[in-house]
Amino acid sequence: MSALTPAQLKTPVPSDIEISDATTPVHIREIATAAGLLEDEIYFYGKTKAKVALAVRDRLSHVEHGAYVVVTGITPTPLGEGKSTTTIGLAQALGAHLKKKSFACIRQPSQGPTFGIKGGAAGGGYAQVVPMDEFNLHMTGDIHAITAANNLLSAAIDARMFHESTQKDKALFNRLCPAKKDGSRVFAPVMLRRLRKLGITKTNPSELTDDEISRFARLDIDPATLTWNRVLDTCDRFLRGITIGKAPTEKGHERETGFDITVASEIMAVLALATSLDDMRERLGRMVVGMSRKGDPVTADDLGVGGALTALMKDAIMPTLMQTVEQTPVLVHAGPFANIAHGNSSIIADQIALKLVGRDGVVVTEAGFGADIGMEKFFDIKCRYSGLRPQCVVLVATVRALKMHGGGPTVTAGKPLDAVYVDENLALVTAGCDNMMQHIRNARKFGVSVVVSVNRFATDSDKEIAIVCAKAVEAGALAAVECNHWALGGRGAVELAEAVVKACASPTNNFKFLYPLEASIEEKARAVCQKIYGADDVIFSDLAKAKLEVFTKCGYSHFPICMAKTHLSFSTDPTKKNVPTGFSVTIRDIRASVGAGFLYLLCGDIMTVPGLPTRPGFYDIDVDTTSGKIIGLF
Amino acid sequence: MSALTPAQLKTPVPSDIEISDATTPVHIREIATAAGLLEDEIYFYGKTKAKVALAVRDRLSHVEHGAYVVVTGITPTPLGEGKSTTTIGLAQALGAHLKKKSFACIRQPSQGPTFGIKGGAAGGGYAQVVPMDEFNLHMTGDIHAITAANNLLSAAIDARMFHESTQKDKALFNRLCPAKKDGSRVFAPVMLRRLRKLGITKTNPSELTDDEISRFARLDIDPATLTWNRVLDTCDRFLRGITIGKAPTEKGHERETGFDITVASEIMAVLALATSLDDMRERLGRMVVGMSRKGDPVTADDLGVGGALTALMKDAIMPTLMQTVEQTPVLVHAGPFANIAHGNSSIIADQIALKLVGRDGVVVTEAGFGADIGMEKFFDIKCRYSGLRPQCVVLVATVRALKMHGGGPTVTAGKPLDAVYVDENLALVTAGCDNMMQHIRNARKFGVSVVVSVNRFATDSDKEIAIVCAKAVEAGALAAVECNHWALGGRGAVELAEAVVKACASPTNNFKFLYPLEASIEEKARAVCQKIYGADDVIFSDLAKAKLEVFTKCGYSHFPICMAKTHLSFSTDPTKKNVPTGFSVTIRDIRASVGAGFLYLLCGDIMTVPGLPTRPGFYDIDVDTTSGKIIGLF
Repeated sequence: MSALTPAQLKTPVPSDIEISDATTPVHIREIATAAGLLEDEIYFYGKTKAKVALAVRDRLSHVEHGAYVVVTGITPTPLGEGKSTTTIGLAQALGAHLKKKSFACIRQPSQGPTFGIKGGAAGGGYAQVVPMDEFNLHMTGDIHAITAANNLLSAAIDARMFHESTQKDKALFNRLCPAKKDGSRVFAPVMLRRLRKLGITKTNPSELTDDEISRFARLDIDPATLTWNRVLDTCDRFLRGITIGKAPTEKGHERETGFDITVASEIMAVLALATSLDDMRERLGRMVVGMSRKGDPVTADDLGVGGALTALMKDAIMPTLMQTVEQTPVLVHAGPFANIAHGNSSIIADQIALKLVGRDGVVVTEAGFGADIGMEKFFDIKCRYSGLRPQCVVLVATVRALKMHGGGPTVTAGKPLDAVYVDENLALVTAGCDNMMQHIRNARKFGVSVVVSVNRFATDSDKEIAIVCAKAVEAGALAAVECNHWALGGRGAVELAEAVVKACASPTNNFKFLYPLEASIEEKARAVCQKIYGADDVIFSDLAKAKLEVFTKCGYSHFPICMAKTHLSFSTDPTKKNVPTGFSVTIRDIRASVGAGFLYLLCGDIMTVPGLPTRPGFYDIDVDTTSGKIIGLF
Repeated sequence: MSALTPAQLKTPVPSDIEISDATTPVHIREIATAAGLLEDEIYFYGKTKAKVALAVRDRLSHVEHGAYVVVTGITPTPLGEGKSTTTIGLAQALGAHLKKKSFACIRQPSQGPTFGIKGGAAGGGYAQVVPMDEFNLHMTGDIHAITAANNLLSAAIDARMFHESTQKDKALFNRLCPAKKDGSRVFAPVMLRRLRKLGITKTNPSELTDDEISRFARLDIDPATLTWNRVLDTCDRFLRGITIGKAPTEKGHERETGFDITVASEIMAVLALATSLDDMRERLGRMVVGMSRKGDPVTADDLGVGGALTALMKDAIMPTLMQTVEQTPVLVHAGPFANIAHGNSSIIADQIALKLVGRDGVVVTEAGFGADIGMEKFFDIKCRYSGLRPQCVVLVATVRALKMHGGGPTVTAGKPLDAVYVDENLALVTAGCDNMMQHIRNARKFGVSVVVSVNRFATDSDKEIAIVCAKAVEAGALAAVECNHWALGGRGAVELAEAVVKACASPTNNFKFLYPLEASIEEKARAVCQKIYGADDVIFSDLAKAKLEVFTKCGYSHFPICMAKTHLSFSTDPTKKNVPTGFSVTIRDIRASVGAGFLYLLCGDIMTVPGLPTRPGFYDIDVDTTSGKIIGLF
């Protein structure tokens, strides 16, 4: 790890790609070696990226974990308050400046929006992952693998329904288990999983009764219950709703369905929550795509495709090692949606990083959206499956966002900021601190120390910053410090790093979940909505009530829950800023991600395919064909 | 390169994945070093694959090319006659046995069909590329990059039509060239390409007249003319025909369209025919997606996306280095359809290989389908754009296929072979040799030496083989030898390799194209159909005639042509075996791949999305979660 010198920091701070281009990353082999990885444990993907084998966890099984820090934020403006940048900046400060072993663990961004509305996900300024074009485009192909796996399952569903519609049970069975030359038949191993599920213990196809043949061979999917969409990592709004099967070869078997963006696939959530190759195989196989006409869940393994999905995801399960501008090691892995999924990077990456830094090191991981969403899901979903226990929450706040919560005018991306956001305004800041304080109190409910990081803008006054820091401590934060890593690199986050190290060692740390898994789905929803959002009550629509019943009957009520709610307010109304009171949360619908292992409760419409504006970002993107460098990317 | 010893060859020959698994490939670094590549010129993708930088061509610009050999086949049975296996086996024989510098250059297979109907594309038996699972799944992500690029262009098309439908010209222009704070506007560099095309030389947006603003900002695409489909590398038949825009957010802007499999994308053909990064940039930008209502072609650069497509394809332009079971270096790169495209691996891979082997070495490349299709397109399209001149055609024949041409019963995949294919039958073989002889005479029309490789099956008799060899020489082949590389590795193709080396040095080699580019589209079609297929005449449908007129007006008549015809017959009727006579070829439609640089003439319906059978291959595929190895793949 190598700190940037003051001479290397330019003022004003250049664009992200200019900084990335001006940085010469070291060969990733050097980062890997410095992090303690062995030659056998790394798979290079070019000179600046490498995949890390899961075997490193076994080799280091005797090593005590480092400190585990999660970065989250207050309720943000639509401009974002710098959570990723803080994650990277903090890791840089811990590593290149405090000389601790440190890792940043972050999500892989969706490639689609890179070409739509500008804005990368590699951090920014002098706190970013480089090369940022390698980070934002393709990376090591994990999202492409998810696209392939997701859509193989989609093709399997429609092809199976088509073939079932034209064949009787016996014919279906004869095709699924064809007789060899000697007349014998065998089940593929994946078929034994379906037989077990049906309670059939026979392993010789020739011994099945007619009834068993019918139950085994006919999945009898009810098309109206299908929840499995196709996916693409492209902002293609015209695929949100489509009719498939319109070609004459499909003989009129049309169906209404749609595409999501790939990061919304359940397979992305599976990747993020899997703890081993074997665990991923089981999760992929038990993903439910819809129901049979009799009301039984139909899984990927029922369709015979769980193993093939695992084959497609075999390399994606390895996190990707990259570096920051200060050569801090970064693991990039998984990037599920933060509404219909849990919005956190992978368990495996965190586990590997915690082993590699060892007991005196620190791993900084990021949770998506504001703390009411990303942090709560980090604790109640990710930590539940990983068994890992965090010691410290870093809550990112900005004076800009706090002024908005205090009553400042609407902040809109692409429009100039109102003067109140530029001039000193102590009243607005003071009023808006309520939002931050509520997030701090929420974090404390999980028994974890809180450090507030105030990302300072040039227009913030010392008095404004002082108010924020005082209010943070008043609400229970162990410390609150201003940060300037965007402009100064790790040097701008040294004070934060010192506070975090101290917080991790605090004897008051005593992690606990918000709710027990044995609670009913309604009880879990009430716990999150009342204790975290401050809602009076939770209302379930008739549809949601029906789903409650179905899912409880299916045995899914033991899953943790995942709220699909706006991140722009504690409430479900994005216009209600600060700390709204006197509201209820209405659950419109409930869906089950059985493979990932959570139920998600829809509090409104969630858009799962962004659109392209009239002038998309792609207009500026090109390749300098002489140097081979990408230009115009952010 | 390291020959397999007789002790390493098992009898009976195990399955492809068993052989692949039993082979321990050396680290690809060793293959690269032995091939003369420098550290800077290779980008590892794991331990068995590496991308090769195009810069190696410049470093070796002074080096004389090696011999250039193309492998093609007679009109095949649906089972295939072993063209890929011969390509690999011949390269193994040249390298590990004749101790020459040799390379095999092959296509990347589509991943989709891997999960449908069994059958890999890495060669087979003891003449294959390893590890075969790495070869067949993802490889180094090139096809995924094409999916991303193709679909970004699709999204751009529909989003643009949508935004144009809701905005007047001035508003569109203001969004495309927004005013900065000081009121100034700039064109993105890609916009200058559109302005040049429109004959507008101004570079300051503020100086455009109202008329110029309208012409610049409104593409006015006629949806009925759109030929650009979305793509996925999945066998998903239900996407062949779809209606898009059904979600309420698209406000009723529905449209009928469809998906193709990714290898059918024009971008795949562009990758295969590009000669440099700069050339690829230009080809991607000039791809035509449809026509304006005024009848002007609308290109990717008109949509502002040519540069972004290049950014997505920046790494895909580098061929992937792998190895055979005998450690012969293999370059895998591009795999366009052989009907609607030209069916050959990339120009860049061949160029790199020819430099690396040097004047005494040999590069073996493969052309898709039978010689009437793949070889003709190799010469008239690929060699035209590459400037490379082949010295030798290896024509693969089997006694089985020749018997079919001689009048044997229909051969169907998955059904047992008729007895005539197993027992000696000299009459059928003799009669069927006409097909082979016609292919030999066709190859000689291009002025290139021909060597026939008879892939011997255990059931072939010596007399049958002798007839084939004699007939081959009678038709003009320099040599005809039997081969057994599938069972014996390179050792089984040593005689073939010796014949090929001799043929490459033949003073009779004098390469020429079949037709000049200046000929009209009809003349080119006649040249191919009459001289190669043996047709009496070519008939153009009314639609094709209309397209002839449009494309000639657009200036596309100088392109080489690409026939989209069945590979199962010289004629357009797949049931007409051997050498059909007295037939005409009807051109149903003509399409333009303006970026790739050819017109394709449709002689029938071409299926561009395979389906999944009732029991797809994926039932057998899984991952052994202990070893991490893929099982059940072929």
